[in-house]
Amino acid sequence: MVAVLRAFGAKGPLWLRRGPWAQLPARFCSEDLAGAGRRESDPRPTSARQLDGIRNIVLSNPKKRNALSLAMLKSLRSDILHDAESNDLKVIIISDLKELTEEQGRDYHAEVFQTCAEVMMLIRNHPVPVIAMVNGLATAAGCQLVASCDIAVASDKSSFTTPGVNIGLFCSTPGVALARAVPRKVALEMLFTGEPISAQEALLHGLLSKVVPEAQLQEETMRIARKIASLSRPVVSLGKATFYKQLPQDLEMAYYLTSQAMVDNLALRDGQEGITAFLQKRKPVWSHEPA
Amino acid sequence: MVAVLRAFGAKGPLWLRRGPWAQLPARFCSEDLAGAGRRESDPRPTSARQLDGIRNIVLSNPKKRNALSLAMLKSLRSDILHDAESNDLKVIIISDLKELTEEQGRDYHAEVFQTCAEVMMLIRNHPVPVIAMVNGLATAAGCQLVASCDIAVASDKSSFTTPGVNIGLFCSTPGVALARAVPRKVALEMLFTGEPISAQEALLHGLLSKVVPEAQLQEETMRIARKIASLSRPVVSLGKATFYKQLPQDLEMAYYLTSQAMVDNLALRDGQEGITAFLQKRKPVWSHEPA
Amino acid sequence: MVAVLRAFGAKGPLWLRRGPWAQLPARFCSEDLAGAGRRESDPRPTSARQLDGIRNIVLSNPKKRNALSLAMLKSLRSDILHDAESNDLKVIIISDLKELTEEQGRDYHAEVFQTCAEVMMLIRNHPVPVIAMVNGLATAAGCQLVASCDIAVASDKSSFTTPGVNIGLFCSTPGVALARAVPRKVALEMLFTGEPISAQEALLHGLLSKVVPEAQLQEETMRIARKIASLSRPVVSLGKATFYKQLPQDLEMAYYLTSQAMVDNLALRDGQEGITAFLQKRKPVWSHEPA
Repeated sequence: MVAVLRAFGAKGPLWLRRGPWAQLPARFCSEDLAGAGRRESDPRPTSARQLDGIRNIVLSNPKKRNALSLAMLKSLRSDILHDAESNDLKVIIISDLKELTEEQGRDYHAEVFQTCAEVMMLIRNHPVPVIAMVNGLATAAGCQLVASCDIAVASDKSSFTTPGVNIGLFCSTPGVALARAVPRKVALEMLFTGEPISAQEALLHGLLSKVVPEAQLQEETMRIARKIASLSRPVVSLGKATFYKQLPQDLEMAYYLTSQAMVDNLALRDGQEGITAFLQKRKPVWSHEPA
Repeated sequence: MVAVLRAFGAKGPLWLRRGPWAQLPARFCSEDLAGAGRRESDPRPTSARQLDGIRNIVLSNPKKRNALSLAMLKSLRSDILHDAESNDLKVIIISDLKELTEEQGRDYHAEVFQTCAEVMMLIRNHPVPVIAMVNGLATAAGCQLVASCDIAVASDKSSFTTPGVNIGLFCSTPGVALARAVPRKVALEMLFTGEPISAQEALLHGLLSKVVPEAQLQEETMRIARKIASLSRPVVSLGKATFYKQLPQDLEMAYYLTSQAMVDNLALRDGQEGITAFLQKRKPVWSHEPA
Repeated sequence: MVAVLRAFGAKGPLWLRRGPWAQLPARFCSEDLAGAGRRESDPRPTSARQLDGIRNIVLSNPKKRNALSLAMLKSLRSDILHDAESNDLKVIIISDLKELTEEQGRDYHAEVFQTCAEVMMLIRNHPVPVIAMVNGLATAAGCQLVASCDIAVASDKSSFTTPGVNIGLFCSTPGVALARAVPRKVALEMLFTGEPISAQEALLHGLLSKVVPEAQLQEETMRIARKIASLSRPVVSLGKATFYKQLPQDLEMAYYLTSQAMVDNLALRDGQEGITAFLQKRKPVWSHEPA
């Protein structure tokens, strides 16, 4: 038990005080970071808890920021991938994004970019919706992560920046996610000047789904997460996969793919249950079975 | 004459009270819905009127909502396609979109999705601009229709939703149109939570062209429609077709296609007339001739 | 010297009163417009000045508007292209866009569209960021130019329009740039009705990066330009080229291209300097060397 607590940064008791999160079973960390170069006593750079279908991944607050970026990305990847196929998982929230800073040093090389890109693509390819919850400054890869999530909720004191150009390293990989979330002119001004935009501007331009006062951030994020967790997982999964599949297609192919998907959706056990429940004017009872 | 009135739901007198719409000539319904399984006495699920180049298609308010979706789509398709090549038609307005609900039942199958997709693509491929006028809740395929129209005007009490996920049927086909109208994060939150967005949010994110108080909805929509109807139909048609043709292309090909189109536009009789009138400081007199 | 002044419209003294701009060296106009059909005494339709890495191109106010469009495009192209590879150039500002009207007459033919498209693509392919500064009405190709620039700043009294349809010439080429800057519904309403949108609407929909009171327009534009001019030119150049290269790609290819670009960026002399300076907690000193 102690080993597990250490793997999560020995913050067990704190979690309980923070919210309704139960501790994750030991096997949660089975594909842990062995070999990632961390010493036994290093705190794990992310922590993950899961309750009622909602997995909450928190990027922790490392002291040695310059040394942790790659480890954090690997840890984040591991937490996102863990038991992705389990029906117990309905939605993921990633928070404390301000801590996912870009590495500044010689280690900030191809492997970091590669792992970073992998994590971002993982979010899109993941079977459940991934929500970013932001409170503070989301910078560089942190900003990229917000742009890459399916939904993003931020406090009104949050801001967003891609400042690499200031230290001679243009934020080209964050630009990939940014360019697909906001208008081109907004992305380019952020990238060319390295200056931050406010939460309101981010909302206006499509980088965020919602902005709320700091005191309501957790509540609103959880409200959305609970809503999604109350729905049929295979229906949501099929919907998410189909959405991204049709996105780059021309209209005809997009409609062909989605019409097929809706026929498949109707054939799902939960598709049948949903319609039956609707006709019988009762609440549906989801089986969450994948077929 | 009575037969025609019945085909339009026998609402003839009402139309006159509603607005300045004259009754359509009998041949308007020539490619009617024979064989669509409606009984003689069933009201037609859409009604269409045309005056001064503006065709107004209204989705009517059927009692048996669950049985009408496919018939309504077919009726809408017929009203959109009717005499599309006629120079008398300059612009189309579709209203009462809240009534285009998704079907909830076994009949809501591949044919519905297919017909629905056809109607949406029809709007894009139609020779004249199609305007959506929304007053109330536009849901599922109704929301898809708003997203698919060229222009959309809504009252400030309108809202927009893709709620399929609540009954276990993800709105994947509406998502095609939605994803091409609003930022990805907005589309995904609507699809994943099934919750509505307000008219103001829809305007902010590009789903609507304009939001006005309910009392001005008809007036503002008609103002835009009249403006378009006052222009040269072949010029507008060529412009619309060219716009959608260049949209998915890279910049170089997009400029190649549009430069060609502008040369073609200049060779049109109305292209010549427009420039001559401009130089002579008089109002142009359009022939609306296709070449 | 007099010849140079004439080539720039003999406005030398005025420039000094207008702002801090020094006169450009004579060779600036080396690839001048000989053969473009202008008489010796014609004023040059654009003027360009460069100071501290910032080139300011102003579209001048010709009396014979109908005869100047092609000449102005060629002059603008020349001013944008001039010494593009020089390390002295960090950013370009183009202003008085309201004067870049579309030609209305027989000469407004394929060559104009071709040259216009070339200028727009030039902006995207140019090694430094190009900023549009707008004060007034940006119409047709002027609106296209705003949409094509990397960044656009406008006064709050500015407006934007693609009015060609009014004179029977649909703004199809401006539509290419517009469709890539604003939501589809906004672009189509502008193109179909020919009516203007305000600076606030343009900002809301992504056509502008920033809107400021008229009195602050120059100041705010210069602030952004100075910020960019203070950065490493090869880093910004690589970033800009990479941004547009990844834009049309799928996510996987986009991340592949940008990860490569960031590795290349790190190998740049200024990439090394930036990181070293960051670690040494001092200001970086850019060499601006291309490798």
